[in-house]
Amino acid sequence: MAHDADFRRELGQQLRVDSIRTSAAAGSGHPTSSMSAADLMAVLIDGHLRLDYSSPENPANDHLIFSKGHASPLYYAVLKAVGAIDDAELLTFRQLGSRLEGHPTPRIPPTDVATGSLGQGLPIGVGVAMAGRSLDKLPYRVWVLCGDSEMAEGSMWEAFQHAGWEGLDNLVAIIDVNRLGQTRETMLGWDLDGYVKRIEAFGWKAIAVDGHDVEAIEAAYAEAEATTGQPVAIVAKTMKGRGVKAVEDQPGKHGKPVEDAEAAVAELGGERDLSVDVAAPEGGSAHEFETSGGSLPSYELGDEVATRKAYGESIAALASIRGDVVALDGEVSNSTHSEDFREAHPDRYFEMFIAEQQLVAAAVGMQVGGRWTPFVSTFAAFLSRAYDFVRMGAISQAKLVLSGSHAGVSIGEDGPSQMALEDIASLRAIHGSVVVHPSDAQQTARLVAALADHDGISFIRTLRGKTPVRTAADEDVRIGGSRVAVEGDDVAIIACGITVDEAVKAAERLADGGIKARVLDAYSIKPIDASAVQAAARDCGAIVTVEDHAPEGGLGDAVLEALAAGDETAHVVKLAVREIPGSGTPAELLHGAKIDADAIADAAQKLVASPA
Amino acid sequence: MAHDADFRRELGQQLRVDSIRTSAAAGSGHPTSSMSAADLMAVLIDGHLRLDYSSPENPANDHLIFSKGHASPLYYAVLKAVGAIDDAELLTFRQLGSRLEGHPTPRIPPTDVATGSLGQGLPIGVGVAMAGRSLDKLPYRVWVLCGDSEMAEGSMWEAFQHAGWEGLDNLVAIIDVNRLGQTRETMLGWDLDGYVKRIEAFGWKAIAVDGHDVEAIEAAYAEAEATTGQPVAIVAKTMKGRGVKAVEDQPGKHGKPVEDAEAAVAELGGERDLSVDVAAPEGGSAHEFETSGGSLPSYELGDEVATRKAYGESIAALASIRGDVVALDGEVSNSTHSEDFREAHPDRYFEMFIAEQQLVAAAVGMQVGGRWTPFVSTFAAFLSRAYDFVRMGAISQAKLVLSGSHAGVSIGEDGPSQMALEDIASLRAIHGSVVVHPSDAQQTARLVAALADHDGISFIRTLRGKTPVRTAADEDVRIGGSRVAVEGDDVAIIACGITVDEAVKAAERLADGGIKARVLDAYSIKPIDASAVQAAARDCGAIVTVEDHAPEGGLGDAVLEALAAGDETAHVVKLAVREIPGSGTPAELLHGAKIDADAIADAAQKLVASPA
Repeated sequence: MAHDADFRRELGQQLRVDSIRTSAAAGSGHPTSSMSAADLMAVLIDGHLRLDYSSPENPANDHLIFSKGHASPLYYAVLKAVGAIDDAELLTFRQLGSRLEGHPTPRIPPTDVATGSLGQGLPIGVGVAMAGRSLDKLPYRVWVLCGDSEMAEGSMWEAFQHAGWEGLDNLVAIIDVNRLGQTRETMLGWDLDGYVKRIEAFGWKAIAVDGHDVEAIEAAYAEAEATTGQPVAIVAKTMKGRGVKAVEDQPGKHGKPVEDAEAAVAELGGERDLSVDVAAPEGGSAHEFETSGGSLPSYELGDEVATRKAYGESIAALASIRGDVVALDGEVSNSTHSEDFREAHPDRYFEMFIAEQQLVAAAVGMQVGGRWTPFVSTFAAFLSRAYDFVRMGAISQAKLVLSGSHAGVSIGEDGPSQMALEDIASLRAIHGSVVVHPSDAQQTARLVAALADHDGISFIRTLRGKTPVRTAADEDVRIGGSRVAVEGDDVAIIACGITVDEAVKAAERLADGGIKARVLDAYSIKPIDASAVQAAARDCGAIVTVEDHAPEGGLGDAVLEALAAGDETAHVVKLAVREIPGSGTPAELLHGAKIDADAIADAAQKLVASPA
Repeated sequence: MAHDADFRRELGQQLRVDSIRTSAAAGSGHPTSSMSAADLMAVLIDGHLRLDYSSPENPANDHLIFSKGHASPLYYAVLKAVGAIDDAELLTFRQLGSRLEGHPTPRIPPTDVATGSLGQGLPIGVGVAMAGRSLDKLPYRVWVLCGDSEMAEGSMWEAFQHAGWEGLDNLVAIIDVNRLGQTRETMLGWDLDGYVKRIEAFGWKAIAVDGHDVEAIEAAYAEAEATTGQPVAIVAKTMKGRGVKAVEDQPGKHGKPVEDAEAAVAELGGERDLSVDVAAPEGGSAHEFETSGGSLPSYELGDEVATRKAYGESIAALASIRGDVVALDGEVSNSTHSEDFREAHPDRYFEMFIAEQQLVAAAVGMQVGGRWTPFVSTFAAFLSRAYDFVRMGAISQAKLVLSGSHAGVSIGEDGPSQMALEDIASLRAIHGSVVVHPSDAQQTARLVAALADHDGISFIRTLRGKTPVRTAADEDVRIGGSRVAVEGDDVAIIACGITVDEAVKAAERLADGGIKARVLDAYSIKPIDASAVQAAARDCGAIVTVEDHAPEGGLGDAVLEALAAGDETAHVVKLAVREIPGSGTPAELLHGAKIDADAIADAAQKLVASPA
């Protein structure tokens, strides 16, 4: 079914011509970054890629990820060549409503994930390849086109490292070494040997090749396909803007249409109308794990259990019920308690070591196709390391659950580097996210189950220390819910996580002084239970919010937003961590941060005494 | 001044003993991770390190950074051995108010930066070494103690890559290969050759050594000191918990005190009272750049200038006035316009390529000692890649200015991967941060100057497209300020950046319908101008906030917080980007996101018609 070298050269020229045409029609885009990789893609789709473009949901399909997402003109030119889009659609590039966005997104099938933030396609590809080998158990191959500029991203080296360690021989990285970045030459320029040495040092096979020699490319792909036991990188020497003298290997030609597109197309031999029947994969359905059933853990009222421990027990139990649930951890599984999952379901647990970008990227890769539901855990503070991957995950329409343990100053002695204090703010701002922060084990178990059904990115924040179970097994716990922990109508205290305990203590103390404080456990921060917040405002008129988090973007802001959206008004005092904490016991640090029972009672008393 | 091998072996034992003692006193900590590196530190401080501990501010001092910050017991044991703290203070480890926090922070001099989030010390050390060579122009050396677990972090490889490319021969990384991570063996275990190959591939000299052989360590340090033209890594094979059988090379002994501390100390030969006079550096003062003077750019009312362009012009001008100002960029200097700085001050500009973690880390390193004020630029969306470094930068008490260009949907065709929509939320939550988002060039210039004086982390968000200059040259523009762009008292529109333009258009349209809308340009989002917001509430009673950002944690939340802090109430409608945008023209996308003049006018009209 593959064609000869002449056809492939012509196909490469067509991909260049179409890259120029589509960028010219858009008036923007990256044709020169596309032209360098055109021959690499021509040979790939004609004889190596096995992807049924008419059936993107086929689990046996190969995957093609453009880690250099700005080469979208080439990506769309490929889609035209394989018959997935027509020429008219090709020319809608970057227009409002077009599926062909500035950088590829899943809006145009079979695109697995959004790229365009460099250094993400390869680590995500590692996750797809891990799924192929260990979850789907299908022989598909993952091809990732990488730029040379993005080789500077540390996340790429996390990917090389992890794939090398796993020996993922179903993964091929194609490095388009066109030498020129956005403003200047890359660090390594055309030093192919420099790339080869680095990549080999991480356990891969690396093959240097002339990226414009279709026969050499053919040989390299064949060698990649024949390689077992390790992933393969094709390190291809190419020229940016290849084939058009005005831009070929010229600085200053990044990210803009070719000036005289008509002349450039003519120089490349004009438009062509070649098409390629990409090979379909052999059949095969994805593996499914057997489940033993059972139920989620349930806890006795008054039991003292850390929510991180309940998290571990809950995901382990959930995976006994649901075969789609998998877990990944950043080498802190005895802290996050994902170790419970690892022990119960070792074949669905993935150790990602201290590499949080690859941790989240692997999860994004695994959820491609919708067959697996990843639970990702590390310290909440260290999820900040992967923030760009979470941001892009939302654009990828990814479904995954992030679990961050060791929230806030309540962790105590380890000090501020280990304390998540910005996590709620940063993850609330992610499109479509859910953010929950249970105060007890019962809530944790129920929320874990709920998040597994949330079609998007969710975040569950867990505590290091133990808290008493206050939620009864038959209570309603849901995304968007809340819980009245103490009834009262003089003042409302809205808390989450560890501060619920402090709020309950404060309410008891306030009751001694004749003040009836309502304590609202706002375990769902996004979406927040707006009606419960508004009811608190209506009934109490004054609200204290308290959170083990920075003052910005957390529970307090969510409460203010809920109030703004309704007709109720209330005086709101926001308690949060306003100074950088040090070390100390949890109680000392909660006190020092003025988010403990003392501070809450004090704030509530002042509000009641002088509500304005 | 250095001692013999026997003394050094004894000193190593003392460091182990003190690591055990301090962790035992605290009841927590990481003694075993300290014991593996004790001999490496003993030889370092006795004959190699040149650091006047009695004068931490000496610019000629060497720097010692514990990238494996959890080895803080060892770090503090070293401080005792060199006379920087006494034994009584050593035993205050992790107690409330102690300078000896769970992980090192600058609260205990001469600690340069906070560590404890793995993979940060080495890239920050690269920045210190860059400052030594290119800014201070002093021969100090930067020694970084790294763990083997953190070698999995991509940021480490950004550091190896950048230091190798720069040929930083004033940088020595000491890798403590103790084989055991938190829960299991590392990916490479004791495969020293694996580390050597990787590190050499990135252009370093790598020396494998027995990390418990003080004579071999001596030879390795001597070789490192004699090496020119490239950085050096000492790859040391060590044992976690070395010297105490109960924990030596045992799994499950991470991050906890040695159980029987007394017996362990006895096994190590008991307490010692050795002290080391660390060599002081030769004298020398830091280089200062000559300045030509001049003034900040000023813009004519009505000029159309992109704020990113004004940013570039302003930092270039500022550096002509102030010799302390330096600039770094992530290979997008023609987008962020830091290229203006590069052209004017090439000796103070640093190209960090597409490696945003190393970009921010280098800036954190450069500001150590307070002599240099770094301005760091990339697309605002890509600052998310370095979020953990910014978070830790705050704990490091770092002073730096982050500039993020290409904010929001207003960038247009490039699509959501390039659009910062979470940046305000995430950076507002950073302790002590300032967040500004100027709407025109004049504001930009003035804010650039103001941020250079802000003692902490600040963020200036700039626009891709041009906006008209509305701020007169003699107007007051300041951190915490705002500007009334249009007077009115029927409804207030609070906007920032591109939405100020849209708000002004909306106000004009509303005026045609008899509604007098006030437009408040809230260019300072943190701190927000609370009195101006409260005045808007008092005078207008109804507020529309509008931002090219996610609904959570941005301008709207800052406005609600300002209202909650005051006595004024108002009905607030928040306009923000609620769906993932696609590609399109800026106008189309602003319209589609419902943050353009149409949407603003519509929201304002509804508020005025039905204020409840």
